Amino acid sequence: MKRIAVAGASGYTGLELIRLLDRHPEVTITCVTSEQSAGKPVSDLFPSLRERCDLLLEPLDPATVAAKADLVFTALPHQSAMVVVPAFLAAGKPVVDLSADYRLHDAAVYGQWYEPHKNPELLPEAVYGLPELRREAIRSARLVANPGCYPTSIILGLKPLLAAGLIDPASIIADSASGVSGAGRSAKVDSLYCEVNEGYKAYGVGGVHRHTPEIEQELSLLAGREVVITFTPHLVPMDRGILSTIYATPLQKVTTEELATLYAETYRDEPFVRPLPAGRFPSTAFVRGSNFCDIGVTVDSRSNRIIVISAIDNLVKGASGQAVQNMNLLCGYPETLGLEGLALYP
Amino acid sequence: MKRIAVAGASGYTGLELIRLLDRHPEVTITCVTSEQSAGKPVSDLFPSLRERCDLLLEPLDPATVAAKADLVFTALPHQSAMVVVPAFLAAGKPVVDLSADYRLHDAAVYGQWYEPHKNPELLPEAVYGLPELRREAIRSARLVANPGCYPTSIILGLKPLLAAGLIDPASIIADSASGVSGAGRSAKVDSLYCEVNEGYKAYGVGGVHRHTPEIEQELSLLAGREVVITFTPHLVPMDRGILSTIYATPLQKVTTEELATLYAETYRDEPFVRPLPAGRFPSTAFVRGSNFCDIGVTVDSRSNRIIVISAIDNLVKGASGQAVQNMNLLCGYPETLGLEGLALYP
Amino acid sequence: MKRIAVAGASGYTGLELIRLLDRHPEVTITCVTSEQSAGKPVSDLFPSLRERCDLLLEPLDPATVAAKADLVFTALPHQSAMVVVPAFLAAGKPVVDLSADYRLHDAAVYGQWYEPHKNPELLPEAVYGLPELRREAIRSARLVANPGCYPTSIILGLKPLLAAGLIDPASIIADSASGVSGAGRSAKVDSLYCEVNEGYKAYGVGGVHRHTPEIEQELSLLAGREVVITFTPHLVPMDRGILSTIYATPLQKVTTEELATLYAETYRDEPFVRPLPAGRFPSTAFVRGSNFCDIGVTVDSRSNRIIVISAIDNLVKGASGQAVQNMNLLCGYPETLGLEGLALYP
Amino acid sequence: MKRIAVAGASGYTGLELIRLLDRHPEVTITCVTSEQSAGKPVSDLFPSLRERCDLLLEPLDPATVAAKADLVFTALPHQSAMVVVPAFLAAGKPVVDLSADYRLHDAAVYGQWYEPHKNPELLPEAVYGLPELRREAIRSARLVANPGCYPTSIILGLKPLLAAGLIDPASIIADSASGVSGAGRSAKVDSLYCEVNEGYKAYGVGGVHRHTPEIEQELSLLAGREVVITFTPHLVPMDRGILSTIYATPLQKVTTEELATLYAETYRDEPFVRPLPAGRFPSTAFVRGSNFCDIGVTVDSRSNRIIVISAIDNLVKGASGQAVQNMNLLCGYPETLGLEGLALYP
Repeated sequence: MKRIAVAGASGYTGLELIRLLDRHPEVTITCVTSEQSAGKPVSDLFPSLRERCDLLLEPLDPATVAAKADLVFTALPHQSAMVVVPAFLAAGKPVVDLSADYRLHDAAVYGQWYEPHKNPELLPEAVYGLPELRREAIRSARLVANPGCYPTSIILGLKPLLAAGLIDPASIIADSASGVSGAGRSAKVDSLYCEVNEGYKAYGVGGVHRHTPEIEQELSLLAGREVVITFTPHLVPMDRGILSTIYATPLQKVTTEELATLYAETYRDEPFVRPLPAGRFPSTAFVRGSNFCDIGVTVDSRSNRIIVISAIDNLVKGASGQAVQNMNLLCGYPETLGLEGLALYP
Repeated sequence: MKRIAVAGASGYTGLELIRLLDRHPEVTITCVTSEQSAGKPVSDLFPSLRERCDLLLEPLDPATVAAKADLVFTALPHQSAMVVVPAFLAAGKPVVDLSADYRLHDAAVYGQWYEPHKNPELLPEAVYGLPELRREAIRSARLVANPGCYPTSIILGLKPLLAAGLIDPASIIADSASGVSGAGRSAKVDSLYCEVNEGYKAYGVGGVHRHTPEIEQELSLLAGREVVITFTPHLVPMDRGILSTIYATPLQKVTTEELATLYAETYRDEPFVRPLPAGRFPSTAFVRGSNFCDIGVTVDSRSNRIIVISAIDNLVKGASGQAVQNMNLLCGYPETLGLEGLALYP
Repeated sequence: MKRIAVAGASGYTGLELIRLLDRHPEVTITCVTSEQSAGKPVSDLFPSLRERCDLLLEPLDPATVAAKADLVFTALPHQSAMVVVPAFLAAGKPVVDLSADYRLHDAAVYGQWYEPHKNPELLPEAVYGLPELRREAIRSARLVANPGCYPTSIILGLKPLLAAGLIDPASIIADSASGVSGAGRSAKVDSLYCEVNEGYKAYGVGGVHRHTPEIEQELSLLAGREVVITFTPHLVPMDRGILSTIYATPLQKVTTEELATLYAETYRDEPFVRPLPAGRFPSTAFVRGSNFCDIGVTVDSRSNRIIVISAIDNLVKGASGQAVQNMNLLCGYPETLGLEGLALYP
Repeated sequence: MKRIAVAGASGYTGLELIRLLDRHPEVTITCVTSEQSAGKPVSDLFPSLRERCDLLLEPLDPATVAAKADLVFTALPHQSAMVVVPAFLAAGKPVVDLSADYRLHDAAVYGQWYEPHKNPELLPEAVYGLPELRREAIRSARLVANPGCYPTSIILGLKPLLAAGLIDPASIIADSASGVSGAGRSAKVDSLYCEVNEGYKAYGVGGVHRHTPEIEQELSLLAGREVVITFTPHLVPMDRGILSTIYATPLQKVTTEELATLYAETYRDEPFVRPLPAGRFPSTAFVRGSNFCDIGVTVDSRSNRIIVISAIDNLVKGASGQAVQNMNLLCGYPETLGLEGLALYP
């Protein structure tokens, strides 16, 4: 039974970690942290946890937390994670970090999109935690950089095409949409119910969203050349879910059926990726609460474009579920342990 | 490993049964039925099930179904369940019926609120399947009548008060509200997204909702005298959840703290009822997807009324989760098996 | 053409005033205020106003505002309104105040539910602005205290019964539900999309909501004796709307048809109250964006209770629409001017 | 005072016509039709209309309808409109048709995407009713083919770029999203609340949506050459609104500021198109219930693409509001009459 700490348990990804770990047979949560709510039971913030996880929230003191846990999930804002991660590693505790702090291999790129990095020396060893790309490296990692939600949906959507060299990498447009939980749980007018409900809009338009370099880093590795994409996120009035509709120009003639076969083969042994048959496309509703990534693909022969549509739950495969999947790999547990739940529909 | 049939698998309670049973370690689903969609994989209707339950839907032939299963869940409309239940029993297969057909002990009352009963001779042996009231009877039942969603919330909410004789039974008003999944999955204008969204309304006003006699039957048994209530259901623009706000006049002076203690004691050993501390009240959001019933209680001393508020997920504790709980009792499994999942929040 | 100031234009009631006044043929908005956003065009906060109301927001300096306007709407939080209202009156400008500050006739009651009143000497002349109760007094008022949203729905719902002496005033229970805009536009975790969406809950349970004394004051005047009620507000995941389901015990035998006739007669000449025929009940969806109050009534003869259900848009008849109605009366315009818009459905 | 008939008044576009025409000072609705609900007041179907439009619904007999009206709106399904439109024209009554039946100039294209056309001889005289493109032709038309909702948003979004020759017409990708009212008011499982709520998905993927030829027809006319586009519609869990995110490759170097200026100039005199300043993008929430089309534009210099985002209310500028705008032109009324309402926000 491994002891687990969740650093940053007052946000949605922290809560989702607790929900998933509560069902995991090999681990027990021993420590949850929150600066603002320290001293309260976490079940006061989230009554869904009552009688199942009533741990008191603690301030985030790395030494105290490290003493209580064998592995730490850091579900903190970027720039905050990097303040504590080195201490956990120094104490010999592996870390799955859900922030953006260790996803980019190049500290200069990080500095350009975020702020200067505080411990760039850790970047070379941090493993980008997308199991479908780096399963083996994750197994032996000390520090796993859990991918962003948009990147997970887009990279899994494009992997078969890029690996097969079927599309022009310069032609990629990813038009994505996210539920509101992606904006976090901090109090701001833009996330109020009445500001978000009954409206649909784009944000971060024009190549300025911070997930862009992360997506491009991984697509470039897959393509074997530098990839620059157009990426436009949108906000959907729903709690959970990301759907990415991805457009690319084929480099050769290809049919929908051939692509469906390619996706089926690529993901045949992946427990959490479900390629759909030709002619079917995913909805975020059918992955809500689950760790699945559903993918549909088609060829628009009129306009000569390939269209890939991928759907995940941003809090599960896009964050906490993937983090648990990474923990399973890192700890040598079966990869699907604790992640077997089907989507809650409706 | 018991073999399970879900008769009526194209509706929401049928789907929810499959979602829950998929995680249950002691059973396997061997048969799913639907007249309209017979021949299709159930995962075509509900892609959330892909790669986990791809059984073909069959027409509901009782002999065929009985041959494939050790226990049958009937998730059929009332009047339809009673057509097939006798055949399952005759074949020696216990039944957990999610319809209203076997909930009322009195065939005349059934006839008055529904239509004439087709096999009233089964009513005496059918056990009203609210484990918090009839755990022992359920363990040895052949036919469990799974309670309605509104009744579950109201009966659990009032049980401590009625059992203790603290309220005037003639004073009970239950003002309830349900998410839209309670209306089922059949195509009708009233359940269209645009008809329901962004609106709140009452329906079945004035004592005409069919759950009324079921609620009154059980409250009367608890009170030891005939109880007639005022019950008003409302429709909330959300998928899941029932919240009942229940008003009653105390027969003696009592404080909120005394009531909180009474509820805590009454439900101390119940795995799925969570009485809240004084001053806290439930939200359907915190039970969504789980089998919990959360209950808060207070005294309004200004107007001399007790107010009880109870919340469940109508598809789980209000239907399929309670049905699995009943199956567990009936089969001698631990009562919570397969029902440990925490609420999906947000 | 009267010049109008909206003090407090960065909240939802302020915005709704602008939306309604924009269509009013006899007035023009000349001043909008906001401390936090002073200097910005109000259409920057609310792009719905672009090209139609691009006034710059100003800090709330009473002298400056009074100089620019012939009448002032104060759409400010309680306790803030009373700081500026005296100055507007002193400058000879009539005020329609949307806060709670001048609704209670008794400063002691105000102090008990809010905080000590800063200018109790104004309370005697303030007119409680429910036109269906006090049309003539409003016409000659200097200071109109615009009613609260819950009180509007409950008082209009009960007026015919209390005026006719048909119910026991001690038996009244009002179970109400509101859309989220009632919580205002300030940044707080409780009003975040993901905290509110897909959940239904009560709040202010047990006679503690601040609208209680306002409701009781007006019901007592209608009943000719002191009325104490049980009032439970709930929060519905939708933007707009209040529905009140009101229970009372009849003092004499009465039929649904008689009540329907009573309501039809009581409200025959009211332009904004629509009593429904027997057997029909309102939905908030059908008044969304309009100034109507729809009311249905029935007798539950099984349990001997009268049930009244009333629906309004909390931002229109429950706030800004009623305020414009009051302005019309106060200024001698036709009462319906600028308020003719039908509900936006769906 | 012109007499107006609404043929097809039981659907959402029919209802929206009634809502808008109710406020129009120059017309009066004299006839509303519905096959299924003939004999009932239209306010029985839509209680929002009570006391304001209580006309009885009639079966659609062209002669009877033509006798009662000076102008007819046909808010019927495609293939049904073309059955009655010729009779109205023959009776000398101009028609604004909200179906797809007269939008395509080429009967062969219509036949390919729909079914064979019943009166192709009317196609040459039908005017595609987008006032921003064909204001003068509409003024003198007998038959106006009111544009589709997606086409309105996409054509208005691209007009300045195509007219200026700034983009490669072969590079256009339109990724659009619509609220659920676009699916109409007929009873089908796919439009049920629980099927749509809390989910986001694409449909009509791969160039198969029937609005495609309509969009391409008009873009080709603007570009002066044949345009083929990639168009992917999505379904958003909200009642109203369409947002189109449109991608194109510039043919020359251009800046965001230059584009903002181009859009401002192109639409300077348009009462219902609001180009936004550089760096701002629209939300459907800010046009809900109004006839505005808001447009933002930017250059993604990293990936060398122009991104245009346009938002409308699908039932107003995308259907009934545009139809009233066309009626105004056709009848010689001021173009904005009856359409001045601001968006309902929140």
